[in-house]
Amino acid sequence: MATLITLLTDFGTADSYVGEVKGVLLSQVHGVVLADITHQVPPGDVRAAQYILSRVWQRFPQGTVHLAVVDPGVGTNRRALAAQTAGHFFVAPDNGLLSFLSPEAHFVSLPVPPAAAPTFHARDLFAPAAGQLALGASLSHMGQRITDPYRSPLPAPREDGGVVVGEVIYVDRFGTLISNIPGDAVEPGVRIKVAGTEIGTLARSFGDVQRGVLVAFVGSGGTVEIAVRDGSAARLLGVGVGAEVRA
Amino acid sequence: MATLITLLTDFGTADSYVGEVKGVLLSQVHGVVLADITHQVPPGDVRAAQYILSRVWQRFPQGTVHLAVVDPGVGTNRRALAAQTAGHFFVAPDNGLLSFLSPEAHFVSLPVPPAAAPTFHARDLFAPAAGQLALGASLSHMGQRITDPYRSPLPAPREDGGVVVGEVIYVDRFGTLISNIPGDAVEPGVRIKVAGTEIGTLARSFGDVQRGVLVAFVGSGGTVEIAVRDGSAARLLGVGVGAEVRA
Amino acid sequence: MATLITLLTDFGTADSYVGEVKGVLLSQVHGVVLADITHQVPPGDVRAAQYILSRVWQRFPQGTVHLAVVDPGVGTNRRALAAQTAGHFFVAPDNGLLSFLSPEAHFVSLPVPPAAAPTFHARDLFAPAAGQLALGASLSHMGQRITDPYRSPLPAPREDGGVVVGEVIYVDRFGTLISNIPGDAVEPGVRIKVAGTEIGTLARSFGDVQRGVLVAFVGSGGTVEIAVRDGSAARLLGVGVGAEVRA
Repeated sequence: MATLITLLTDFGTADSYVGEVKGVLLSQVHGVVLADITHQVPPGDVRAAQYILSRVWQRFPQGTVHLAVVDPGVGTNRRALAAQTAGHFFVAPDNGLLSFLSPEAHFVSLPVPPAAAPTFHARDLFAPAAGQLALGASLSHMGQRITDPYRSPLPAPREDGGVVVGEVIYVDRFGTLISNIPGDAVEPGVRIKVAGTEIGTLARSFGDVQRGVLVAFVGSGGTVEIAVRDGSAARLLGVGVGAEVRA
Repeated sequence: MATLITLLTDFGTADSYVGEVKGVLLSQVHGVVLADITHQVPPGDVRAAQYILSRVWQRFPQGTVHLAVVDPGVGTNRRALAAQTAGHFFVAPDNGLLSFLSPEAHFVSLPVPPAAAPTFHARDLFAPAAGQLALGASLSHMGQRITDPYRSPLPAPREDGGVVVGEVIYVDRFGTLISNIPGDAVEPGVRIKVAGTEIGTLARSFGDVQRGVLVAFVGSGGTVEIAVRDGSAARLLGVGVGAEVRA
Repeated sequence: MATLITLLTDFGTADSYVGEVKGVLLSQVHGVVLADITHQVPPGDVRAAQYILSRVWQRFPQGTVHLAVVDPGVGTNRRALAAQTAGHFFVAPDNGLLSFLSPEAHFVSLPVPPAAAPTFHARDLFAPAAGQLALGASLSHMGQRITDPYRSPLPAPREDGGVVVGEVIYVDRFGTLISNIPGDAVEPGVRIKVAGTEIGTLARSFGDVQRGVLVAFVGSGGTVEIAVRDGSAARLLGVGVGAEVRA
């Protein structure tokens, strides 16, 4: 199988940056297949990057290399990581982006190439490392093993007197509020509340309500979501990431 | 030839959704080549999706699978379709998106996999079906043949006392108004009108007029378009999809 | 190696145009690999296209074909070019987009196919030409050799009494101001000024300053850049392309 490298950044698609990274990878690895996950992560939003990559990586086949660079600390002394787990490979800055990986995953700290531009490690450090992994290099030859990657996991819900209290962890293009409350943690008949507004019990999908109506359901990521059919729950409720969700 | 799958959705490119779909396809079909048509269809705009796909599909080689998901009814009882015509394959919701295909095309209704997320059939139903087609599955083994796909064709122009009366069916990034009036239906010397404003006779291209000037010509899709050189006809005229065009 | 074609346009990604171009290329060239550089060049901004492509092309392997279409003069009598230099191939309108290539590069003027839509040479002229190059056609069989391509190079800095005077030539997604002053033209200790505002001496990276603070450094393209950590220098200073930079 042609090796796959996925790309996730906050570079946008208007500038030269993604093209430069692709050129490096395609020059280094004969026949590699590149798959853009997104380049539209809000600038510097490591948490959004973490959420997106945590949803996507396992959909790809084993052997895939995931290049994920949302890196507000580029050029500082934050470490650069490569990681391996469950047959997948990752390169990313050591800023919490990979916190969804088990701490038992194999992590190494990558050296900074002497000629790397201090502001563009995606091109000069992470892409060459992803290319090496795609070419079959072993993690242990690429850097020093570390066991203390910086971890900043997405918040977990808690229980409070029989109520599950979580929060919105992502808002998608449609204005749907995605919470961190697993669908199977919600008792049947429980009414969902977002930032104090009662939405109702879990429906099956936004297709179950009329246009413009708020609805809660278990979304495609397995957690409770609040949406407006043909509309934006974020706009209607005026809330975003961090808003309390009760179930 | 490596099998090709094109992707057309309204998912945007900021969230995890397109990445999840790509992961499914690349896991399922060894060596498949993915080609993004667009993920920027306005949310739920089946008509825009239909227009775009109707322009694009025949440019791809025979054997291509076109995965097109603009699906405001996801999770309701709308059917899911696979179709085959002229050596091309399609998977899409049964909401009119494929109305540009001849009614004689071969259509089947796809079953919903039991574990499919009600809000993400693109990932859990359409992508696996596209993958099966790319792997050579025959349509008749994938679902029940149907002969009544939901049809909602783009509006056709009519004649009214020697005048061709059509409408704007799409507005592109540049603000160019694309009508449904075929260029060869316009008599020489006829003056084009949009929403009551006279534009003039057909020019060859917007290059024929000065900057900022309105011009009508036969566009690259074969129909009459109204543009402003280095500007936006939609903004200048304050009109959009549905505006009357007379020729 | 599978032949590579890169794509750079101002078509955006919402309409059918990029999909039509990809379909033409994938129909014409068995196994070709397409790499999007960007389709988000501001409409008609040949200078931005030139800057982006000049940064990207050498990152790709030899043999790559670069299809670059920002073409406000499409359908006028501007020529269409194919070019070859340093093992790379280019197709683009003759409007200055390729001014970064040495005048000693091999340029030919491409004929307009009789059936080409006057408003869509990307699909009907440039893509087929890129496909031919990817298939191994020799430049001299594709058009008439020319030695006078239209040149409109990016502005060069000048010296003025020991000060290097340049200007902002590109503003990226992050609002970073990219100048045309090479990093190695700046004497140690010199204070950078942008449009009259003093920024300070060259730092190593925006990581060297606090959030919200202006900083100048040598960017990943090798020239002086002015940024705001976690912010936008363009917005903070209220300046853009053309603003004077002194070093």
